[in-house]
Amino acid sequence: MNHVVIMAGGIGSRFWPMSSESVPKQFLDVLGVGRSLLQMTVDRFLGICEMDNIWIVTSKAFREQVQQQLPDLPAHNILLEPCRRNTAPCIAYVSWVIKSVDPSANIVVSPSDHYITDVPRFREAVQQCLDFTAQSDAIVTLGMQPDHPETGYGYIEADLSYATLTNQNIFRVDSFKEKPTLEVAKEYIRKSNYFWNSGIFIWNVATIVNAFRVYQPQMAAIFENLREQYRTEREQQLIDEVFPTCENISVDYAIMEHADEIYVYPAEFGWSDLGSWSSLHKLLPKDEHNNALVGRNIRVYDTANSIVHATTEREVVVQGLDGYIVIEKDGTLLITRMEEEQRIKLFH
Amino acid sequence: MNHVVIMAGGIGSRFWPMSSESVPKQFLDVLGVGRSLLQMTVDRFLGICEMDNIWIVTSKAFREQVQQQLPDLPAHNILLEPCRRNTAPCIAYVSWVIKSVDPSANIVVSPSDHYITDVPRFREAVQQCLDFTAQSDAIVTLGMQPDHPETGYGYIEADLSYATLTNQNIFRVDSFKEKPTLEVAKEYIRKSNYFWNSGIFIWNVATIVNAFRVYQPQMAAIFENLREQYRTEREQQLIDEVFPTCENISVDYAIMEHADEIYVYPAEFGWSDLGSWSSLHKLLPKDEHNNALVGRNIRVYDTANSIVHATTEREVVVQGLDGYIVIEKDGTLLITRMEEEQRIKLFH
Repeated sequence: MNHVVIMAGGIGSRFWPMSSESVPKQFLDVLGVGRSLLQMTVDRFLGICEMDNIWIVTSKAFREQVQQQLPDLPAHNILLEPCRRNTAPCIAYVSWVIKSVDPSANIVVSPSDHYITDVPRFREAVQQCLDFTAQSDAIVTLGMQPDHPETGYGYIEADLSYATLTNQNIFRVDSFKEKPTLEVAKEYIRKSNYFWNSGIFIWNVATIVNAFRVYQPQMAAIFENLREQYRTEREQQLIDEVFPTCENISVDYAIMEHADEIYVYPAEFGWSDLGSWSSLHKLLPKDEHNNALVGRNIRVYDTANSIVHATTEREVVVQGLDGYIVIEKDGTLLITRMEEEQRIKLFH
Repeated sequence: MNHVVIMAGGIGSRFWPMSSESVPKQFLDVLGVGRSLLQMTVDRFLGICEMDNIWIVTSKAFREQVQQQLPDLPAHNILLEPCRRNTAPCIAYVSWVIKSVDPSANIVVSPSDHYITDVPRFREAVQQCLDFTAQSDAIVTLGMQPDHPETGYGYIEADLSYATLTNQNIFRVDSFKEKPTLEVAKEYIRKSNYFWNSGIFIWNVATIVNAFRVYQPQMAAIFENLREQYRTEREQQLIDEVFPTCENISVDYAIMEHADEIYVYPAEFGWSDLGSWSSLHKLLPKDEHNNALVGRNIRVYDTANSIVHATTEREVVVQGLDGYIVIEKDGTLLITRMEEEQRIKLFH
């Protein structure tokens, strides 16, 4: 059966003060559409599997927010990390849990705070990857066709010379590349076999569990030891004990860089990791002067190329700004030039 | 005995959203010193007279705010206008009331929302004017020595060729001038006998009542008719009936422009009508980049010549602004270039 794992433990600081450590980006309606990014992520996967097979891995601090935002999700499908240990321990934990309830599970792993424009095409891509991993021990990633030399994303180098036999749009990965310089990113774009790493993975549960056993034996042993305890009353207490002993490492470093059978599905359904205000600006509806205004009563004069995000203000008037970010959230106000947005982390 | 009349019925809109129709400027601690402009105005006059002789004329809507801000003021010293009729009816009403309790009263009339830097010199000037009007039928205004060709104030043209016999710093007024153009203001400054009209008047009660009888006989009759009713239970009800029938006119037009015995006391104690954000900016303490920051936790980067006024925000970060006004108040946010501040009235 298909399962969807959504990683919702992040505490991004680039969207402060819209987001905060206590209410990070995934729980916010950043696009002003009435649904949080987490809710939109779940919505996107309905059709791939039932709500009963959707798993949210998050921090203990966020349990209530997840339950409030996803009232139809079974409470025991929320797995709680006692501390932050990056994506590898998170994925190992949920993989062993899923294995305990469905040893033949076929799994999509996804971040909770990304945005996808063309949801039907996204579902089609995920379904094709799931069909592929249902019959193979492959690890598949969704690779996004880049349309500009973005330096904020990692890249996947694919071998496009021959496709797999079962799916003509799935190719072997030659290497994963970290966020490049602009020079290098331009080079990647010039070649046609580089894709943005979306952080969306597809595999069957046996494949990922075996990959942990091979490439992260210590971590695998930690979760293997608890195999009789998953879905019991003792699970949380034991996880609270062992999870902090896991290495703090991403699944990219822990597995992807080592495994052989890694594949990429190049796709073009419009994707953003919403990693910056300027990336959010691209996605938001804009007025004739390229302003994105999110809030109830926002008026702008002599203003262009700006974002005003003030969902908790009753009324906002902005005059005479070009290329600015104006954010107000629950008593905190940030005004900064958009080109200085990398400094936002330092501002709070 | 000395009496002080403070006119506190204004609803200025130039400081929106710091001020609002329900909480206008005089009730706000615009300077961030812990006292509202009204409270500072009262403080300034203590020493001139007792609290029992201070009269506040305001709108009915503001009675509670006045009582809260001035708990030591006798409740019946707050006179309530049922509607706004500019300064002449306001001054007529309070003058007849004071006459009914103290026919030999000597009176200072003052706006409630101005700022004065050197309070001891202000008190000295007022006391000298009161000494003068105690012995004469003069109408005296405080004229401020201008230090720049301000176009936002009215001017008083004085005849400096000879002073009065009793006070060497009190001179006859030749004329009142409306807010001039910059050209004309520069001409006024070049001459040395033009002073800013502070809107602060000194006279004895007989003088002002007589002036109303002569120059505004209709208005005088309205308040004269109630002479047996002041300070009785019926006062408010009768005022509610007759006040709306008064002409909507300023005391400058109603009395000053007609009366002969008008004098000016030129003074230099630092005065501002706080009529604009830039005038407030001049008075506020500023950082080394000429920023005035009023609020609890305001940090600025790459920012100069700006005002950030956000007393109801917990935290404010501003980057990359030069010459801007940033105001947040109870869910309303305004950002505008300071040089466009005259448009603020149109923004709300």
